[in-house]
Amino acid sequence: MTQPLNVGVIGCGFMGKAHSNAYRQVNHFFDRKHQPVLKACCARNRDLLDPFAARWGYESTETDWRALVARDDIDLVDICVPNNMHHEIALAAAAAGKMVVCEKPLAMNAQEGQEMVDAVERAGVANMVWFNYRRVPAIALAKQIIDEGRVGRTFHYRTTYNQDYTISADVPQGGAALWRLDARVAGSGVTGDLLAHSIDTAEWLNGPIRRVTAATETFVKERKHAESGQVEPVTIDDACMFLAFFANGSMGTFESTRYARGRKNYNTFEINGENGSIFFDLEDPHILQFFKYADPATGAKVEDHLTGWQRIHVTNFEHPYMDKWWVPGCTIGYEHTFTNALADFLESLERGEPFDPDFRAALRTQQVCDAVLESGKSGEWVEL
Amino acid sequence: MTQPLNVGVIGCGFMGKAHSNAYRQVNHFFDRKHQPVLKACCARNRDLLDPFAARWGYESTETDWRALVARDDIDLVDICVPNNMHHEIALAAAAAGKMVVCEKPLAMNAQEGQEMVDAVERAGVANMVWFNYRRVPAIALAKQIIDEGRVGRTFHYRTTYNQDYTISADVPQGGAALWRLDARVAGSGVTGDLLAHSIDTAEWLNGPIRRVTAATETFVKERKHAESGQVEPVTIDDACMFLAFFANGSMGTFESTRYARGRKNYNTFEINGENGSIFFDLEDPHILQFFKYADPATGAKVEDHLTGWQRIHVTNFEHPYMDKWWVPGCTIGYEHTFTNALADFLESLERGEPFDPDFRAALRTQQVCDAVLESGKSGEWVEL
Amino acid sequence: MTQPLNVGVIGCGFMGKAHSNAYRQVNHFFDRKHQPVLKACCARNRDLLDPFAARWGYESTETDWRALVARDDIDLVDICVPNNMHHEIALAAAAAGKMVVCEKPLAMNAQEGQEMVDAVERAGVANMVWFNYRRVPAIALAKQIIDEGRVGRTFHYRTTYNQDYTISADVPQGGAALWRLDARVAGSGVTGDLLAHSIDTAEWLNGPIRRVTAATETFVKERKHAESGQVEPVTIDDACMFLAFFANGSMGTFESTRYARGRKNYNTFEINGENGSIFFDLEDPHILQFFKYADPATGAKVEDHLTGWQRIHVTNFEHPYMDKWWVPGCTIGYEHTFTNALADFLESLERGEPFDPDFRAALRTQQVCDAVLESGKSGEWVEL
Amino acid sequence: MTQPLNVGVIGCGFMGKAHSNAYRQVNHFFDRKHQPVLKACCARNRDLLDPFAARWGYESTETDWRALVARDDIDLVDICVPNNMHHEIALAAAAAGKMVVCEKPLAMNAQEGQEMVDAVERAGVANMVWFNYRRVPAIALAKQIIDEGRVGRTFHYRTTYNQDYTISADVPQGGAALWRLDARVAGSGVTGDLLAHSIDTAEWLNGPIRRVTAATETFVKERKHAESGQVEPVTIDDACMFLAFFANGSMGTFESTRYARGRKNYNTFEINGENGSIFFDLEDPHILQFFKYADPATGAKVEDHLTGWQRIHVTNFEHPYMDKWWVPGCTIGYEHTFTNALADFLESLERGEPFDPDFRAALRTQQVCDAVLESGKSGEWVEL
Repeated sequence: MTQPLNVGVIGCGFMGKAHSNAYRQVNHFFDRKHQPVLKACCARNRDLLDPFAARWGYESTETDWRALVARDDIDLVDICVPNNMHHEIALAAAAAGKMVVCEKPLAMNAQEGQEMVDAVERAGVANMVWFNYRRVPAIALAKQIIDEGRVGRTFHYRTTYNQDYTISADVPQGGAALWRLDARVAGSGVTGDLLAHSIDTAEWLNGPIRRVTAATETFVKERKHAESGQVEPVTIDDACMFLAFFANGSMGTFESTRYARGRKNYNTFEINGENGSIFFDLEDPHILQFFKYADPATGAKVEDHLTGWQRIHVTNFEHPYMDKWWVPGCTIGYEHTFTNALADFLESLERGEPFDPDFRAALRTQQVCDAVLESGKSGEWVEL
Repeated sequence: MTQPLNVGVIGCGFMGKAHSNAYRQVNHFFDRKHQPVLKACCARNRDLLDPFAARWGYESTETDWRALVARDDIDLVDICVPNNMHHEIALAAAAAGKMVVCEKPLAMNAQEGQEMVDAVERAGVANMVWFNYRRVPAIALAKQIIDEGRVGRTFHYRTTYNQDYTISADVPQGGAALWRLDARVAGSGVTGDLLAHSIDTAEWLNGPIRRVTAATETFVKERKHAESGQVEPVTIDDACMFLAFFANGSMGTFESTRYARGRKNYNTFEINGENGSIFFDLEDPHILQFFKYADPATGAKVEDHLTGWQRIHVTNFEHPYMDKWWVPGCTIGYEHTFTNALADFLESLERGEPFDPDFRAALRTQQVCDAVLESGKSGEWVEL
Repeated sequence: MTQPLNVGVIGCGFMGKAHSNAYRQVNHFFDRKHQPVLKACCARNRDLLDPFAARWGYESTETDWRALVARDDIDLVDICVPNNMHHEIALAAAAAGKMVVCEKPLAMNAQEGQEMVDAVERAGVANMVWFNYRRVPAIALAKQIIDEGRVGRTFHYRTTYNQDYTISADVPQGGAALWRLDARVAGSGVTGDLLAHSIDTAEWLNGPIRRVTAATETFVKERKHAESGQVEPVTIDDACMFLAFFANGSMGTFESTRYARGRKNYNTFEINGENGSIFFDLEDPHILQFFKYADPATGAKVEDHLTGWQRIHVTNFEHPYMDKWWVPGCTIGYEHTFTNALADFLESLERGEPFDPDFRAALRTQQVCDAVLESGKSGEWVEL
Repeated sequence: MTQPLNVGVIGCGFMGKAHSNAYRQVNHFFDRKHQPVLKACCARNRDLLDPFAARWGYESTETDWRALVARDDIDLVDICVPNNMHHEIALAAAAAGKMVVCEKPLAMNAQEGQEMVDAVERAGVANMVWFNYRRVPAIALAKQIIDEGRVGRTFHYRTTYNQDYTISADVPQGGAALWRLDARVAGSGVTGDLLAHSIDTAEWLNGPIRRVTAATETFVKERKHAESGQVEPVTIDDACMFLAFFANGSMGTFESTRYARGRKNYNTFEINGENGSIFFDLEDPHILQFFKYADPATGAKVEDHLTGWQRIHVTNFEHPYMDKWWVPGCTIGYEHTFTNALADFLESLERGEPFDPDFRAALRTQQVCDAVLESGKSGEWVEL
């Protein structure tokens, strides 16, 4: 038997669109007991809100998020607003007994994040953070391959998340579209926006990070504000790079920037282990590169004349999520990672188990981000 | 002002799913006057039909396609059934004054196709054939680049559409899932199923084919029927290759098979011209490879030390369709090609212009397919 | 114990350079009994000959090839002149009891080739044709993988040899540098120059071709002669494409052109079999792509979530020839294919076994070329 | 007029082989006044020395390097022995008035390096260090593209030099073959062996490094000595990673390891600038990837629908060094980088100009290596 799940989405920007699509699509491809109903969406700006609600078929709208949180007909609150509002909304939603799902990064900093974890755990409400890239089939396959022992003892982990859209000094900062360039709203620059993804993936695949040393840079020092038109100092980190040691003894390099000309969504990672290696690049999201050296079950090595990096086209029915979509050889795209994540969340509800990553898992990523930013300032290694 | 477009879909297999998704999604991403309404779907088998209708939210169901075609509340009939039923349904739908959209290939052969063209043109109803790959953004970009003169005088066109899913002699033929392996239902094998795509794309990009010489092969001579369990002769072409000359003087090689181990959806084409070349592979659908040699506007050649194949990541806002979806660096997938096609069809309705490819354009492809099959039998060049 | 092998090279153009390098280098990397000595080189033009002889350290020079062939101090005659002189020199050299090694293609046509085979076999002299690409380590590895049964029953073979250097109508024809554009000297165009390589490789890897249908084209109909300056009709095939059936039942597509903008040395082949597939591209000569599906020894299939094309970096000590050069990860280049071929030829001398490909093997390729050209004219299938 | 250059090579291991090849080949492909003569080679072990001398055609041998340095018939001393002998030999050779060419890294540390610079400069003798990778045509092309302003203001530089040959704990350390695993002989591990290359290239392309923070690791703590068989502590850095700021304000990440399963010679760099970006990977040495964004001369941006990474096949006549070798599309290999370097050195002799990199330039790299190792110990940023 199916059961409706009444959803209230707060924020109707880019992420509001991505999440709305997931709610609309999940039932078309997955068989879940809970059937999301687009009960209400909320934004302060009616000129954005009304067409958004009409486009996606929301049953109602609110312009005050507190009103949405207070409604009895809402089961789940989805936080798609800028980072500086996550904390307050999450606390209110948890207090109101709602399930809470929140865009990443969880919070402005670890202190806020801790309070949010406390709030949802105290309230006992289901919660998740939309680190959607764990649900890229190729990344989920990487996790499976690692869990099967096919990488083995890890020596190295290296990752980048590079883009190029803020190189021009003419790009403004702030406002609805570019709040990610304003640290007062975003908390930080690439560290919270992009490295949070890299760190979430890294710890999921390779276990906890123990210590880091970092450097950050702001290449363009002043930009016009998108709304006021005032030239103001740029407060975010334009780029961040750090070295890490993981608890398992492996070494890591992390880098993110929005100044890597030619890289648009260059979220890559490579992991090198005794039995094999893996490489992934989000610009080719349907591909996982795998170098097989030895079979963990038998210890048998690949014949020396046959070793080589494999380009796995992650569209087989046997690949994570892919039996739900089309047929081998047919790719899925960006928005499907949200749909896959939602499908897993609904399954966790059905099973009564916590979703991973929930607020607690995302707090961990927040703590690493904080350590990175602290090291960027002090120039010293920071332990975690 | 928007206006509902009442859709009746006949067939609820793989293509029924792909088309239903397009009807559901088109309004979320495009701004079209016509708003598809999923009025009815039709299949003979209730065990498939009812869950399908429920999943996609059809308002009603029919088990007899004639009943669906006869309904007054249907504006558009969508034919998603096996090829041997296209002709009869299309004629009836046209006679009933419905818009008709039909999966490819148009028909079992050119004679059927001609009658279908006559029917829709006589009835004056809007019509289209779902050659969805024209709406892969990278292929649409190829068309744009060619139209901009960046390829120039063409010398060569080469294309493949290779898969590997019928290599095992244990794969059965026929039935709901594998009717493409039964020539009585499908008309032909890879020629109609896969080369039809290749031919449609080739003539769209490089103009009409003038003559062909072909060879076909059936590697596995007998298979069990999927329903009867009887071992029967295999009637389709498992593989087909042909040489062609185009009207513009260029030479073409075409090949398709379901016996190319490791190729899952290897729909590729390369076009070589005086000013530049283009390569595409559907297994990396977000990429268009472009070799720029000279600028057609200025005639200026690229500096000799800077020539090279470019890997265009077709996700910029400036790329076809991509301003409607996400942001640069974020890919779309297989099903979006149907949604893009539908959006263009709706736009053609609004403008009162024919859609390309319509039945007439698809008939042309059917004629080339027929010539290929004829040459495969005779061993001689066939003129078109 | 080593033993000198006195070499006389006829022709000091591009191939004279490549072969001279092989004679100079073979002893530095291989341990062969026979030690080539650069006894004499021959060309009609002293202005080219003398600097060439000085650069490579030839002990003497000749301007008349008959004088070179007549010398007692020459053991081996190496024919590096244009194709129309192969036949006469080879017959004379064989008659003089010399070993004869000849650039490809063997001859202007199969009749000449047959007489050359008869001559060397009658004389009982060692002979080889420099189809150097068999000694690209990656191609030799392809042969090994096929011989190990890792491809299994073959369904398809497709190959191209595409370049782009004659697109401009301003390229002249004929003369020392461009005799390949003059059919009176070269015998044919891309068929003998490039497809001869493709055919040699194809039959080596996939067995004999049984029948073909072909088409050729000359895109630029007139060119200035490089020496006379006269505008003359172009006599060669600028491009050639053909379909084939192999004796093992597999289908083949072949294509070659010098009008594929952006392709410089695009000598590619792909072979698809029941157990696996292979792809090679001479523009990345150190790479062999291999798709493993099943192990021929055990029949075990690769796990479905781990299948993918492998990019084998053919520089391991275990790869053909690579233990003779540097260390894993270090590539070799174009000229090494000649050195490897020479090393194998010297080994065949030492073992007293025929070299493959010798004149007889190259005659076979010539026969296929003749059949292709014949079919190109008649438009009909030609049996072999 | 040509002039002999009498060469004495000390060391007949892997680098002795690579250098000997360069001396043998340079005159075959370049037109230099100085003609290297292989006068003498030197090694302590006669069993290695004599076959080596015979293979490469050295006129004489020495088993004491001091005897070689003392010979009047030697113009140039080439140091191909392990790092701990560079200093003493270089000082003696300079004092004897010989030209001195030395394998990289220059010395065990910057102090030794400084004394070597002083020695050659005091003696006024020509000198070079074989940082051969600057003469990979693709890397030389990168330099040219940067010098043409096509990268523009630099934001990021990232580089790796990763291999996988010491993962097994069974690999011994020390002795003739594996002295690179013994810090007493090599000075350091991957830092001096591999990162020295990365640093040399980085500063050549992107200017001086100003400060670094580093971490090193030794994954396998004990290994058997290759000669004594004794298990001894491993003294080298198995892996090293560091962050850097360059004088031009750009940020850098550097990493090297011999524990990156599947990477054999993964010497890569990427540079991101305002006008464009470049990527290189030594495992595909004939390719330079270039992303063009704006033309520095005109400021014109590439059309938005045509931007993409270009794969430049660095084999055109217009590419560095390539007019000396074969024809477009034909690659060269690993050893050619030494030949190209030697050709440039001989040209510098002819012009009476210093070679770059000479001892002084290599000292700079040594200083960066020392700073990296110091930071690896202290955990703090080190200024340069």
